[in-house]
Amino acid sequence: MDGKWLGAAQGCDTPPNRQGSGDLTKEGGPVVNPIDPTSAGFLYAENRHMPMHVGGLQLFKKPEGAGRNFVRELYESSLDVDEIAPLFLKHPYRSIRTGGQLVWKPDDQFDIEHHVRHSALPKPGRVRELLELCSRLHSTRLAWERPLWEAHIIEGMRDGRVAMYTKTHHALVDGISAMRLLQSVLSTDGDKRGMPPMWAADASGSGKKSVRAESADRSLTEVPVQAIRSAMGITAEAAGMPGALVKTITKGLRNETSAVSYYAPRTMFNQQITGSRRFAAQDWPIERLRAIGKATGTTLNDVVLAMCSGAIRTYLLELDALPDSTLVAMVPVGLNAKQSHLASSEGGNAVGAVMARLGSDLHDPADRLKSVHESMRDGKEGLSSMTPAQIMAMSAIGQAPAILAPILRMQGIVRPPYNLIISNVPGPRNTHYWNGAQLLGTYPLSIPINGMALNITCTSYDGLMCFGLTGCRRTVPHLQRLLTYLDDEVKALEKASGI
Amino acid sequence: MDGKWLGAAQGCDTPPNRQGSGDLTKEGGPVVNPIDPTSAGFLYAENRHMPMHVGGLQLFKKPEGAGRNFVRELYESSLDVDEIAPLFLKHPYRSIRTGGQLVWKPDDQFDIEHHVRHSALPKPGRVRELLELCSRLHSTRLAWERPLWEAHIIEGMRDGRVAMYTKTHHALVDGISAMRLLQSVLSTDGDKRGMPPMWAADASGSGKKSVRAESADRSLTEVPVQAIRSAMGITAEAAGMPGALVKTITKGLRNETSAVSYYAPRTMFNQQITGSRRFAAQDWPIERLRAIGKATGTTLNDVVLAMCSGAIRTYLLELDALPDSTLVAMVPVGLNAKQSHLASSEGGNAVGAVMARLGSDLHDPADRLKSVHESMRDGKEGLSSMTPAQIMAMSAIGQAPAILAPILRMQGIVRPPYNLIISNVPGPRNTHYWNGAQLLGTYPLSIPINGMALNITCTSYDGLMCFGLTGCRRTVPHLQRLLTYLDDEVKALEKASGI
Repeated sequence: MDGKWLGAAQGCDTPPNRQGSGDLTKEGGPVVNPIDPTSAGFLYAENRHMPMHVGGLQLFKKPEGAGRNFVRELYESSLDVDEIAPLFLKHPYRSIRTGGQLVWKPDDQFDIEHHVRHSALPKPGRVRELLELCSRLHSTRLAWERPLWEAHIIEGMRDGRVAMYTKTHHALVDGISAMRLLQSVLSTDGDKRGMPPMWAADASGSGKKSVRAESADRSLTEVPVQAIRSAMGITAEAAGMPGALVKTITKGLRNETSAVSYYAPRTMFNQQITGSRRFAAQDWPIERLRAIGKATGTTLNDVVLAMCSGAIRTYLLELDALPDSTLVAMVPVGLNAKQSHLASSEGGNAVGAVMARLGSDLHDPADRLKSVHESMRDGKEGLSSMTPAQIMAMSAIGQAPAILAPILRMQGIVRPPYNLIISNVPGPRNTHYWNGAQLLGTYPLSIPINGMALNITCTSYDGLMCFGLTGCRRTVPHLQRLLTYLDDEVKALEKASGI
Repeated sequence: MDGKWLGAAQGCDTPPNRQGSGDLTKEGGPVVNPIDPTSAGFLYAENRHMPMHVGGLQLFKKPEGAGRNFVRELYESSLDVDEIAPLFLKHPYRSIRTGGQLVWKPDDQFDIEHHVRHSALPKPGRVRELLELCSRLHSTRLAWERPLWEAHIIEGMRDGRVAMYTKTHHALVDGISAMRLLQSVLSTDGDKRGMPPMWAADASGSGKKSVRAESADRSLTEVPVQAIRSAMGITAEAAGMPGALVKTITKGLRNETSAVSYYAPRTMFNQQITGSRRFAAQDWPIERLRAIGKATGTTLNDVVLAMCSGAIRTYLLELDALPDSTLVAMVPVGLNAKQSHLASSEGGNAVGAVMARLGSDLHDPADRLKSVHESMRDGKEGLSSMTPAQIMAMSAIGQAPAILAPILRMQGIVRPPYNLIISNVPGPRNTHYWNGAQLLGTYPLSIPINGMALNITCTSYDGLMCFGLTGCRRTVPHLQRLLTYLDDEVKALEKASGI
């Protein structure tokens, strides 16, 4: 993989602003665009054990008076799109004519029925069957000869809800941008109809045409991509691995700031993974979690991390696999800590990563929450004292571990600096609709990688904290048990804080 | 691919009868078995565009008095298996300890829920939705880190039928053996219950434990595998490509027997393919086809081929892609032509391949049938005059084109000797049941490969001729139209023969 990534990075001596210079046919052919090295990195890093796509599960409530064929009609209207947005029409392509380089090329045989699919759950149509289907769908790779996305409209939930699972390659968008993209086509108006799907060129998606490139709508997680890109000097004419950056990353990882001075124990999560996935999702009222925070003087984010800590502790204890020392989670945070919600929703590049001691070695839920809280507080302080370049580098590690792993290895850093990534990304606070169907919850599916078999991503929506847990099916058995343990932990934290 | 295949063939200097000599763990570890070079060839030949698995679709009628949860109970009983048959428990494995060679190793973390799955069709649950689901399921690759099979029990057909799609890697069984395996666990007794699924160690499958190795139940299509194996001399200690065999194959392909003297035109089917599949299936009463044969003095097999010819002609005409000269189909036949049904069901290695001129350039259905008939008659005669080694070589080409393609290329044979493979394999004549559920039809899914984007395989069952058409989704657009054209052709042939 190292070689491949290096190759990709070295491939960037072609000026990135070259546009449409690839003649693919004798008659001039379609316009092709170079793939930026970061995206190319995600393509090269992909293999059968490590598909590099992110996913989103959205649950909708049918509008009042929806007919029997509501889902089929929704599906069919999703196919009936005049023009596909460029992001959803391009696919990676490489040939002698492109000088062996990967380029983006519009799919001239675009086949929307390949990308947008109608699925159903077997009876009894519980959430269990839905998660099982999403797990399967998340386990298969996207074909490079087609645009790198799929959307599955799912019927058959016994409570009448409708689900949509979407899958997008990380070379197109990162996980959070993907969630944003999904939300961008929704409306707060429940009476609005005729709303196009996100892949339509006329959808009102904010950054759709170039989620990554436009700086007008730089979202929370767009920054790390820019960070890698600029930090690596790959917007310039760098022809190799820029030594200065690697030094920064290494320094950042090894230095003495409290943000990075922890060492993570080896756990069952930090192993080689296989290609199949298990996904679990559930939500809890933010009010309940906030009440715990209020009673204990901790933040909402601290409570989320403490929930994860307690759940993981129970899970590992049951498998007789709990390390003596605490697990460490990498937690992306907004730098303007107190206005992190505002900062992220408004855009802005103040993003860093804190290494949070989860206190998974502690028996008492209150002690775990305390440990998380102190660790996060110290971490953020440490982060503030880092240089912007260090912060960028830290962020980059969280966003692109698959790509940075080889760099770390080259630097002799073989132990993971953390055991898993836990992200908590604020989302919209009010109710959203798609053609009258109310969005009830939205759950992210992420990318497990070698050495990091479990990922927890949370997003808030309409008063709910929505958890998405994505793991390697083999390395993280019985992943769905974590949902029960998360729920147990909420109750335990409530009890411990006297609620 | 050439290099890989050669590598695989060269890897066979390890005696094939070495058993369990690989120590995979310090404590002795599980017993491993070498993978025979033929199977290894199918593994190495596989890539993202060319998954090397065969499939089967079976349709069942629920037994009288089946409850609401019949399908779920069927699914759950399929999971409840004491012991898994060795064929369904082994997976390919390679490490330094195995000397870099691929070996079969039992999956010590076998996870039956990964392999046996419960699926459902979206409304309205027509055959169209079923074929769409099978197309998707047939498009994804099997992971090498697990045993190379999947079974999907499918509910949601509006007429109450139940479907089962199974997928098995060609390294385990060839397509027809897979179909046989499926049938082997069925019973002619509709009252029998407690019948285990085919993956259970106690299932009554004839050749299940070693479909390929045991000679006791050598089925029609098992032979070609043996043919390749022995013809290539790879059961001996051959360390490279045996020149004698290649000469035989080449001679067979180039010689003057009428069996192989045709040249196939280039068609849209003879292109590079992508990884996604489209599957179509339908059946016709054998009585109808036999009546056409009787009226015209042709065989059932001739009528099947004429149906394909007419349907493909209409399909290509509509796409303005019909070549001026006739398409040529490779048709595997039993050598004891008149007793082919008996020969195949009784076992016996008298199998050859005839190159059939489909007469797709002819306007009149009767002319096409006549062309097919003469071509098959001449072909069989030519075949009889071939040496056994030549016949073996011919058979091998039909069964393993992906593997033999590089050999042909090495010999400077770049044009395909045929445009597609059409197999017609006799199956059981009487009604079969699985735990009281009547088998209504059974349809094979095959392996499109580069240069051979469409495959038609037919199997007879209980008075029906069941067609399974498998194509590359991109190279063979609107594959399902062929079903309509096949039906049109039956009517046209009936009319032409005065029925």
